[in-house]
Amino acid sequence: MNTTHAYAAADAKSPLAPFEFKRRDLRDHDVQMDVLFCGVCHSDLHTARNEWKNAVYPVVPGHEIVGRVTAIGPEVTKYKVGDLVGVGCLVDSCRTCASCAEGLEQYCENGFVGTYNGPDRITGENTYGGYSTNLVVDEEFVLRVPPNLDPAGVAPLLCAGITTYSPLRTWGAGPGKKVGIVGLGGLGHMGVKLAHAMGAHVVLFTTSASKVEDAKRLGADEVVISKNAGEMAAHANSFDLIVNTVAAQHDLNPFIGLLKRDGTLTLVGAPEHDHPSPQVFNLIFKRRRLAGSLIGGIAETQEMLDFCGEHGITADIEMIPMQKINDAYERMLKSDVKYRFVIDLDSLRK
Amino acid sequence: MNTTHAYAAADAKSPLAPFEFKRRDLRDHDVQMDVLFCGVCHSDLHTARNEWKNAVYPVVPGHEIVGRVTAIGPEVTKYKVGDLVGVGCLVDSCRTCASCAEGLEQYCENGFVGTYNGPDRITGENTYGGYSTNLVVDEEFVLRVPPNLDPAGVAPLLCAGITTYSPLRTWGAGPGKKVGIVGLGGLGHMGVKLAHAMGAHVVLFTTSASKVEDAKRLGADEVVISKNAGEMAAHANSFDLIVNTVAAQHDLNPFIGLLKRDGTLTLVGAPEHDHPSPQVFNLIFKRRRLAGSLIGGIAETQEMLDFCGEHGITADIEMIPMQKINDAYERMLKSDVKYRFVIDLDSLRK
Repeated sequence: MNTTHAYAAADAKSPLAPFEFKRRDLRDHDVQMDVLFCGVCHSDLHTARNEWKNAVYPVVPGHEIVGRVTAIGPEVTKYKVGDLVGVGCLVDSCRTCASCAEGLEQYCENGFVGTYNGPDRITGENTYGGYSTNLVVDEEFVLRVPPNLDPAGVAPLLCAGITTYSPLRTWGAGPGKKVGIVGLGGLGHMGVKLAHAMGAHVVLFTTSASKVEDAKRLGADEVVISKNAGEMAAHANSFDLIVNTVAAQHDLNPFIGLLKRDGTLTLVGAPEHDHPSPQVFNLIFKRRRLAGSLIGGIAETQEMLDFCGEHGITADIEMIPMQKINDAYERMLKSDVKYRFVIDLDSLRK
Repeated sequence: MNTTHAYAAADAKSPLAPFEFKRRDLRDHDVQMDVLFCGVCHSDLHTARNEWKNAVYPVVPGHEIVGRVTAIGPEVTKYKVGDLVGVGCLVDSCRTCASCAEGLEQYCENGFVGTYNGPDRITGENTYGGYSTNLVVDEEFVLRVPPNLDPAGVAPLLCAGITTYSPLRTWGAGPGKKVGIVGLGGLGHMGVKLAHAMGAHVVLFTTSASKVEDAKRLGADEVVISKNAGEMAAHANSFDLIVNTVAAQHDLNPFIGLLKRDGTLTLVGAPEHDHPSPQVFNLIFKRRRLAGSLIGGIAETQEMLDFCGEHGITADIEMIPMQKINDAYERMLKSDVKYRFVIDLDSLRK
């Protein structure tokens, strides 16, 4: 195997910097790919800086990956050299528990293997993600990328896309349903596009009046400034589902109060400090539900990619070379991106 | 109409005391009944003492009522004089909103009329509950009591019974499901009996080792002392549903952590101060749900009574005369009752 060129965090305090290593030799079911594009997810920054207290250094982030197959193991049947493929947040799971048996590998009872910062199930070695020139992944965790979509815009679908697609499907977004999306960032802008394509009536909640026009362009039927109590009150008791993409600590009660009976507020972002407690009366009096949802399984991720292919959906992105990643992190912290940075890995290939 | 003898709270600070008034003349669809038995619910005390800040005095509590029909309005078709009937927490609703149309009057979009402390929808007068010798209720809000059950033990089914039955049904308690009940009080002991009769594997959570044997007698397959972290850990990720009947403020996270993927923790008691915030990771990583549930609609309450008739289920009660209500309140505050006080209204009939 040739040398892999990557960017890694050496510790929690250091900026990302060039790092070289070798990918494993191909196992029977492994697919090797050149990484073409990799989206920049907030989780990458959390892990690089050890904000979740579980980082194993060096950290090579990146789990929104689009690549081109360059080699396959002897038993691979699903992919061939030259295929355009995707890899998301998962590269392995136990494959035997009840969740894996149902195709919900993200909830693997024995713990899934992350695309980075996860111990490989066979060798125990730390996994390295898509901020790198190539990748080796078991074919069962490789996705097929629809040929009609821009590959760079597809990359963020592998995390931001599936993280919003899965709860929209789980809680039945579709025609006749009123669906809220809280926050217009990387996840939120995908939530708006996907819920709109599913046929739901989509309301985007934002604290920023400057995002109103863009939200409508992306597919929102209505935009509510969530700091405006009057605008919020006009939507009381009316939502079937609200997907909350905001990870910063905030009060959930104003959103719970917008749910109709049996409606669900689903959290897909985890704050560093828990949100204030929801009011129990607010749940009891309309049999409302507060839930969480984590990315999606492999089968559902493929379904999401196919759905995006049918509907011509990709992320709105800003392309950067690998060398600009530390600047991109600082801008991401200021929400200064519309709506996802994507790294062009050609910048690391000489 | 003859004088009705009752006990009422004149204000938030006074003990309940004798109070006389006249029930309304029968409307076309009204059923008049002699109250035979009335259960004592914690809500009665909350309202009498204005702990929910919405009391309208005088407060005549009581919404777990079993009575005998003594007269009917000219248009009544469902009941006749002599029938054994029940009345629960609701005596009217708008009957036109989406929730009422689905038979979920407890979630009436325009607000249901409580059996006590609710303004009558026609006159606006304060309603008076079952701590009284007789009652007048529209036939649509009157229930049929199975003839094979002890009427005194049926009374608590009208609130404690339906409050636990409804979430058990909503979230699919039955054979092959593992169901937790938190707290062995008036609601919890009904939850154990009902979940057991539905065929679920029932685990009762209590902080009190003294309740273990009784919980098993009532139908629990297992009892867990919730203060014991080791006992709790043995049940991690295993519950389909946990119905939490404890209204006192407490940490929900230990119970959320016991839910399997897609499991639900349903709150049926509202604390005076909200529970501490649930950990978002705890929800996200297994797509778990936190929900609330409020009593039940009229159709489901009848279904519950019929279910109890088939399975021979009544509440475990301690009978008291009306004159002992203030003592009963003090004992209820100390959880010194197995498991529900029921007032014998003959004590008010001279």
